[in-house]
Amino acid sequence: MDSTMPGAKEPNPADLIWSERLKTTFDINKMHEFIEGSESEALETLRLMQQLERDPVLNTGAAYYQLSKDEHREITARKIARMGQYMEIDAPNYSRFQNRLNLIAVVDPQLGTRIGVHLGLFLGAVRGNGTEEQFNYWAKERGALSIKGVYGCFAMTELAHGSNVAALETTATYNKQRDTFEINTPHVGATKWWIGGAAHSATHTVCYARLIVDGKDYGVKTFVVPLRDSRHVLHPGVSIGDIGAKMGRDGIDNGWIQFSHVEIPRKFMLSKYTSITDDGEVLDPPLAQLAYGALLGGRVTMVTDSFRTSERFITIALRYSVGRRQFTKKGQKTENQLINYPLHQRRLLPYLSWTYGMAIASHAIQLSYKQTLEKLDEAVESGDFQQLQQAIAFLKTLFGESAALKSTCTWTCLNLIEECRQACGGHGYSAYSGFAKGYVDHAVQCTWEGDNNILAQNSGRITVQKVMAFKKSGKASGEYEFLAKASETGDILAPDTITHLGKQVSAFDTLILRLSLDCIEALKENNDWDSIAPEKLALSKLYACRFILAKWVEKLNSLNEHNGDIVTPLVLLAQLFALSNIEAFGSQFLRFGIVSASTFKAVLEKIGILCREIRPLVIGLTDSFKMSDFFINSTLGSYNGDIYHHYYGVVKMLNEPSKIKAEYSADFEQNLHRGTVEERENFERTSQTLRKL
Amino acid sequence: MDSTMPGAKEPNPADLIWSERLKTTFDINKMHEFIEGSESEALETLRLMQQLERDPVLNTGAAYYQLSKDEHREITARKIARMGQYMEIDAPNYSRFQNRLNLIAVVDPQLGTRIGVHLGLFLGAVRGNGTEEQFNYWAKERGALSIKGVYGCFAMTELAHGSNVAALETTATYNKQRDTFEINTPHVGATKWWIGGAAHSATHTVCYARLIVDGKDYGVKTFVVPLRDSRHVLHPGVSIGDIGAKMGRDGIDNGWIQFSHVEIPRKFMLSKYTSITDDGEVLDPPLAQLAYGALLGGRVTMVTDSFRTSERFITIALRYSVGRRQFTKKGQKTENQLINYPLHQRRLLPYLSWTYGMAIASHAIQLSYKQTLEKLDEAVESGDFQQLQQAIAFLKTLFGESAALKSTCTWTCLNLIEECRQACGGHGYSAYSGFAKGYVDHAVQCTWEGDNNILAQNSGRITVQKVMAFKKSGKASGEYEFLAKASETGDILAPDTITHLGKQVSAFDTLILRLSLDCIEALKENNDWDSIAPEKLALSKLYACRFILAKWVEKLNSLNEHNGDIVTPLVLLAQLFALSNIEAFGSQFLRFGIVSASTFKAVLEKIGILCREIRPLVIGLTDSFKMSDFFINSTLGSYNGDIYHHYYGVVKMLNEPSKIKAEYSADFEQNLHRGTVEERENFERTSQTLRKL
Repeated sequence: MDSTMPGAKEPNPADLIWSERLKTTFDINKMHEFIEGSESEALETLRLMQQLERDPVLNTGAAYYQLSKDEHREITARKIARMGQYMEIDAPNYSRFQNRLNLIAVVDPQLGTRIGVHLGLFLGAVRGNGTEEQFNYWAKERGALSIKGVYGCFAMTELAHGSNVAALETTATYNKQRDTFEINTPHVGATKWWIGGAAHSATHTVCYARLIVDGKDYGVKTFVVPLRDSRHVLHPGVSIGDIGAKMGRDGIDNGWIQFSHVEIPRKFMLSKYTSITDDGEVLDPPLAQLAYGALLGGRVTMVTDSFRTSERFITIALRYSVGRRQFTKKGQKTENQLINYPLHQRRLLPYLSWTYGMAIASHAIQLSYKQTLEKLDEAVESGDFQQLQQAIAFLKTLFGESAALKSTCTWTCLNLIEECRQACGGHGYSAYSGFAKGYVDHAVQCTWEGDNNILAQNSGRITVQKVMAFKKSGKASGEYEFLAKASETGDILAPDTITHLGKQVSAFDTLILRLSLDCIEALKENNDWDSIAPEKLALSKLYACRFILAKWVEKLNSLNEHNGDIVTPLVLLAQLFALSNIEAFGSQFLRFGIVSASTFKAVLEKIGILCREIRPLVIGLTDSFKMSDFFINSTLGSYNGDIYHHYYGVVKMLNEPSKIKAEYSADFEQNLHRGTVEERENFERTSQTLRKL
Repeated sequence: MDSTMPGAKEPNPADLIWSERLKTTFDINKMHEFIEGSESEALETLRLMQQLERDPVLNTGAAYYQLSKDEHREITARKIARMGQYMEIDAPNYSRFQNRLNLIAVVDPQLGTRIGVHLGLFLGAVRGNGTEEQFNYWAKERGALSIKGVYGCFAMTELAHGSNVAALETTATYNKQRDTFEINTPHVGATKWWIGGAAHSATHTVCYARLIVDGKDYGVKTFVVPLRDSRHVLHPGVSIGDIGAKMGRDGIDNGWIQFSHVEIPRKFMLSKYTSITDDGEVLDPPLAQLAYGALLGGRVTMVTDSFRTSERFITIALRYSVGRRQFTKKGQKTENQLINYPLHQRRLLPYLSWTYGMAIASHAIQLSYKQTLEKLDEAVESGDFQQLQQAIAFLKTLFGESAALKSTCTWTCLNLIEECRQACGGHGYSAYSGFAKGYVDHAVQCTWEGDNNILAQNSGRITVQKVMAFKKSGKASGEYEFLAKASETGDILAPDTITHLGKQVSAFDTLILRLSLDCIEALKENNDWDSIAPEKLALSKLYACRFILAKWVEKLNSLNEHNGDIVTPLVLLAQLFALSNIEAFGSQFLRFGIVSASTFKAVLEKIGILCREIRPLVIGLTDSFKMSDFFINSTLGSYNGDIYHHYYGVVKMLNEPSKIKAEYSADFEQNLHRGTVEERENFERTSQTLRKL
């Protein structure tokens, strides 16, 4: 409590938040279970959260937001060591460790990446592209699986080549006499670039390089290349530098690597698929697609990360919107809460619905990923052609789904963070609100491990191809079964059916079908897939919306009667998700006549009504994420709602007011007290002087 | 040149950029004149640019992107001193200094703000709200006009009150006996917050506080309050602290201020409008609106800043898109340039057209601002009621225009920076590309000096009111004259007229009219302006688009025949501007039938065609901005196009590769070499031990 004069009336945001909290109409434990997928998953999440937030080494807090790059790196290194200990206790339950990693990444994304590169990319590549013996050696015997002995990085990207793996220029030339490869960087453009962990940490890398045998180029393959020895000293021929300052994720020591004729043993080539026999013969079975399976893990993780990150930031913005008052409504005396403004609801609540939708997407794609990897392992082990074909089919589905969901969800999350920041007004610009680092850290998710625009093109192309096949055969199956039910003409939604979830799904089905048919028409004319790029982009986003909405309906149908009254809010959110995306793609829905002008008007009105209905539930709906203050890490979004004191306290604690002068004060003051221009010019331009000259 | 083995073929982006540059079809000097408004303005801009970029103190460069907050503050203080010298040589031509400031703000936004707060906000308020004597004393006699003696800040915002000035809680209580005011902060929520320059620099502030005389609250007025004395030591009763870490603009020492019963002389109240007589009587003429005139300068400047900042970032992304190759098109051997992909064109070229559009908006609003201030000064001086009424009408127009343009242009620029970053792939994430600091620095423009959403509501409301008045009187005048020509029914664009600039303007006119009529209908039902918030938001953006397009057409019509072939590209850009905004508001155009479904399809196709036509001109169209490498300050966007060597060189120079170990290396290595879990547990859980227990 501070001293105040009688009559001074402080704002009390905590009161506003608590009074709404107490009116929550549903069981937030049940809602949390829905969000997490099941009761057991909900408990597992809470168990892991509790361990992480109490861990002294993994601590973040407001001070985290003002660390320098070097401090971030140092602290991140310490946290990696700590996470290594958790790996040891989690083993062999690596999916638990992955969940743990996904959680800590919400509040410390750079830490997630640092370990993700080692575990998901380096070891993922060794597992996906290497033989069992190779995996056993590097991961187990050498200890990489618990961050011991070997710390890996992933040297794919080159300075002049990003997403286009097939065009990489680093070479791995086989030397038959010595039974070795020579890894070489031909020119600056082929320098490995952006390699996370390379600058100062990694002992080894998986290097993507063109396999050259007897002058023949076999395309890009993968090789384990040692970078540093047991003293952590760079091997000769290996040049590494720090990439330096980035937009965000300062805790990652991204580096560049040049190989100057570095020799590695033949057995360091990862050879589950491609190998060179003892006689120097190249075995290169046409199963290259399978080699990329493990890499999809990153994309799948990013769907989960978008969901978790969105949980965090929408909670901050919504709590603030309930606690903050601004402007007086006609006839009222006290200022109105931000969230009571229809525009504020329209800005934030569709993103709340997206957050719930991304939870559903995250579980679905995680399951799909797990099943695909199992199929793949079984198939490769069996060597059975049919099983392999089936596994490849699974992989293709996962490829399409993950392309659409990774791109759509990471974009949505980035836009969500920015909208939430703006919704918190000036205070959203304070680093301690969390938005700043949240934005710059998340931004890269739209770019790496498959640029969003490229992925969306892939996804959109698949959809058009599926529609082509459907038109040809009249049959649609798997995740495209909906095509068979979609209509080629007529409107789907009428003003009185716009909130019918089944009809809403049908509206998306239909738009996907009609837009694809339009693309097919265009292709008939020019056969140029690039010419339909904007449509493919739209199709990818529509696919993601449709995917989420359809799964949402399924999940709602599977709820039992002991659901703690969560059905009503979940239905409202699903309806808002559908309608706000119909608004977003309004020009497409309208031009194909899937909604008429009058229906569209009804959609816009209904969005406003749904927002009003969801409005009283926002504290409950964000409390249901069960993100403790550790995971929120924002002065604006703590659970207790005491926004101003918390914020003021953090600012004072981290910026000692007794330090009333800055380092530069003396110079600054001197300048304020400088003499006149004439004095500083020694009066050499005065008329008196000029008369002398 | 680096050593390369025979046969190694480096990418050569410079070659690609130069070969396109040489094919430019128009006179870039003429284009630069168009962009700058006239030949003399173009020369003035170049003259100022040359002085700024050669100045040793104002230097930025790649190293700028990795400065710490303290370093930014120190360097910014030095630059303020330097700019003070330019103020002295520019005086009394303050509009030249303002141009200079706007230019340096493109490459060093925080410096622009630091001086802008002192000059535009502090002195702007003294000029706008103070008497001539007050302005003469603080600005001239004390030296503030050339940053001498007095360095001002602007204490409006409070912790619990941002945009809602009327609800501020700091008090200024008049003490008749002592003829002084007591300035007081009643509680933490009323702490002045975000005050740029307060933390360590300002000697004085203009403080917004409630005037209390004899217990009566006269509302919020402005007072000059000294913060620090001539030794730069805080006055007793004044508590100031540093706001700490922010999203961007680290060079600004934003602070918080609490006043604890601080006494100031009566004459420190700025009293052009409100004053207290020697007898203690409050004179408070109902001209409060006039007091806000000077504050609009900030909004006007932000339109210019959005234009300049967009010039900078679109140049980087387009040069990179020409120099960078990625993926091979069917039948081609070398990879394709990014800009050749239709999607890449669709992502960037509408933003290029916006940049040209914002140039036009910037000149128009600057002119309008200048004229309004002149009218205002004349009117106040004359004291003539009719002149005052006229001046207020000018002010209202400027208020509406600046609200729509500030919000629309700052949002567009922010989205442009992010899209350009993503369009540069991974390298856009390097701090040295410029996007990172560009984004975080610009982000606050959407929030401060009138939150964009609030401003858009104001602008939209004005439009609806104008349409109401037009419907009532049948007359429309001034900037809303277009309403008289807009149509209430029927479609405006047909497939064969979609590129007709006049028809395009009419399409926007019509949408503005029809959407407003819809709002009026809704208001009849509920009379709740908040219920039409999304429509007001759309109307504000539409107003900005229409404003720009209409001015664009005027400017094209005024070009003489010696125009150096700039008409063709300018028409293409204007058409693309119009059509891409018709696409953006597609659902509105479609639902009101202003474009039919088939016309809309033609619009989408035509956008693709326009992009293809503009494609070969992108180097010329960005060279025409004449932004030297100093202003571009990006490894990806230099004029010579040698992207990879430049980038690699900067990274190596700023991150010395010979430093092969990090501070944390020893700890990190030790962790990699840690013993087994059993060893670290002293074997206390082994079965051997457990048998003993």
